[in-house]
Amino acid sequence: MNQLFPIKFEIQATDGEARAGVLTTRHGVIETPVFMPVGTAGTVKGLRFEALESEDLDAKIILGNTYHLWLRPGIDVIKSAGGLHRFTSWDRAFLTDSGGFQVWSLGALRKISEEGTEFRSHVDGSLRFLSPEVSMEVQAALGSDIVMVFDECAPGEASHEETERSMNLTARWAKRSRIAFDQLQTERADTGRRESEGLSGAQALFGIVQGAGHRDLRRVSLEQTVDIGFDGYAIGGLSVGEEKSVMFDVIEEIVPKMPKHAPRYLMGVGTPEDLIEAVARGVDMFDCVLPTRNGRTGQAFTSRGKLNIKNAQWTNDSRPLDESCRCSVCRRHSRAYLRHLYTAGEMLASILLTHHNLAFFLDTMRGVRQSIRSGDFPTFRREFTGRLGANGE
Amino acid sequence: MNQLFPIKFEIQATDGEARAGVLTTRHGVIETPVFMPVGTAGTVKGLRFEALESEDLDAKIILGNTYHLWLRPGIDVIKSAGGLHRFTSWDRAFLTDSGGFQVWSLGALRKISEEGTEFRSHVDGSLRFLSPEVSMEVQAALGSDIVMVFDECAPGEASHEETERSMNLTARWAKRSRIAFDQLQTERADTGRRESEGLSGAQALFGIVQGAGHRDLRRVSLEQTVDIGFDGYAIGGLSVGEEKSVMFDVIEEIVPKMPKHAPRYLMGVGTPEDLIEAVARGVDMFDCVLPTRNGRTGQAFTSRGKLNIKNAQWTNDSRPLDESCRCSVCRRHSRAYLRHLYTAGEMLASILLTHHNLAFFLDTMRGVRQSIRSGDFPTFRREFTGRLGANGE
Repeated sequence: MNQLFPIKFEIQATDGEARAGVLTTRHGVIETPVFMPVGTAGTVKGLRFEALESEDLDAKIILGNTYHLWLRPGIDVIKSAGGLHRFTSWDRAFLTDSGGFQVWSLGALRKISEEGTEFRSHVDGSLRFLSPEVSMEVQAALGSDIVMVFDECAPGEASHEETERSMNLTARWAKRSRIAFDQLQTERADTGRRESEGLSGAQALFGIVQGAGHRDLRRVSLEQTVDIGFDGYAIGGLSVGEEKSVMFDVIEEIVPKMPKHAPRYLMGVGTPEDLIEAVARGVDMFDCVLPTRNGRTGQAFTSRGKLNIKNAQWTNDSRPLDESCRCSVCRRHSRAYLRHLYTAGEMLASILLTHHNLAFFLDTMRGVRQSIRSGDFPTFRREFTGRLGANGE
Repeated sequence: MNQLFPIKFEIQATDGEARAGVLTTRHGVIETPVFMPVGTAGTVKGLRFEALESEDLDAKIILGNTYHLWLRPGIDVIKSAGGLHRFTSWDRAFLTDSGGFQVWSLGALRKISEEGTEFRSHVDGSLRFLSPEVSMEVQAALGSDIVMVFDECAPGEASHEETERSMNLTARWAKRSRIAFDQLQTERADTGRRESEGLSGAQALFGIVQGAGHRDLRRVSLEQTVDIGFDGYAIGGLSVGEEKSVMFDVIEEIVPKMPKHAPRYLMGVGTPEDLIEAVARGVDMFDCVLPTRNGRTGQAFTSRGKLNIKNAQWTNDSRPLDESCRCSVCRRHSRAYLRHLYTAGEMLASILLTHHNLAFFLDTMRGVRQSIRSGDFPTFRREFTGRLGANGE
């Protein structure tokens, strides 16, 4: 059998349901479970790529938003640069979402039909139309290593009927995404093509399981998605306002039924404890804006829980954000200085808090992987979770 | 003679009026002519200290603003941290201004008397009072390596009479600054004390020559300042709205009369061509917000002149900001990408443009120093200035 696949995924150790593996992409090898920093518009806000590549963070894959990049700078610009990797100078892996979630988030500003979604651009107010075919075309131009199907996300509180309708639309869109994607790969429309590590050089395509909080619909959606067949499988539509127990109910229902030998990606999740709990249930990949967005609003994630740098209690505190953290921010700067920067509205506050937060998330995932490989994941999970309450915030 | 001085300054080469020297401070050795990046509130906006220390920039001294740091985070916080170096983690040299210029910039919001200046804080609206004695006390708490006397700055268009009154007030304030400073050094109120390189460990104090565009008053002010006696001499009150010819008239009148063996500091100046023209007239030190402030508003300084990254002409331009620049931004990022970041309002635009601009200013000064040492400064000056027009902006 000499068929080449766009990615290779190998599970190398398990501890209970938790899996430690290696995902090989045309832009590098990624150890899983992995957290993907969010780089919405072709930049992880506030960080230079050198920081993402540094030993502190060493992010192997970041997420780009198709919706944002499509509207600005637009596909012509990125194509002209030779794809998103070259445009941004990031030579490691990119996963791009499909734009479905962003368009869905526009709420009243969008109109959904069988064909796709019509909406007004938040950039210039122009009327735009996004569909499975357009999303695949945009993602091929971006040349991301992992492409997501164009889906519709039902609200967390959606009724069974509403969710079912939405889920079936997602299934039809997934099929159309698959067809358009395959066609684009055949046409070599993908700007990121690069044969490496015995891969096909093509992009990988992930399907998305929807169904809101309805476990029966989630099962149907999983079947529909697996029937089409993808390189990896994501769980979408969680962490969108539902109760945390609903999220874990869905994960527990669905993850054990997902294909064992493909990567499992929980979209848009979550806090450090969410990541660890989802890993314990067999999830391999995550992305979330929390470390970056909250960094910009003054919230640090630490091994002892969250810390709000705005608090007056840090005014003269010479300790680092996290005494257990060895990142360049914690090695160098005090809470007092960071609080001053934040209070003075200095950009450096966002830069340093974002850096630390990502260091914490990525280091946590390193710990998760090591503990799965050494069979100590339950201990890691218990101790990590126990420490988190320590700050009492 | 075993008296130790707070700084040592040695001129090692001259080329015409231009001087290349070494300024030794308790926080490191600084080659002159030197450009000091502005770090208003204890941060050079948008840059991590690691970047300032990196080979790209290798800034040896930065400027802190007494006014800003006094109002926020306040002196108690900085004293509690052990001074500005420790508070910020910057272990190289700091020069602090006196607050006089910032208070003067408040315009109608301040009231000047013989005793000092009363004004309302821009942070919390509280009524504050700044005087030579307060400024010296604040700068001792900051522990900067070079302290500036508290002066009054006459407007560029001030009449002879008005300028003379202001200049005489500055002279009286300089005397009071000297007395208060000496007393604080005796009391070891200075948080930055550190004996090194055969220095006294104390702060250095620079006097400031005022007199607006009136050459006769500038001469008087210089005499008044030298009579008091300082470790270095600055020219203040330029680049505040006057014609550029007025600035160079004053420089040409005053610099040759300044003490030869002390550093000469031209405050708040200027563009790259201003720096080179002032070096050619014998100036050793500069500070200016241009590379940092303009970086945040999308303007790059390059060897071929200014470049406005907002311009649509860069939309698909794969070239770096400056093809002659070897900084990490120019080695990695295209104008197209930088324009996208700026247009999308991404923080990374400010970070990267500020980094490049400072790299360009600091690299220009390296070139200046080398050319003075090799006797090629006139050639350097001519070629540098010739290239600057190339972008035609």
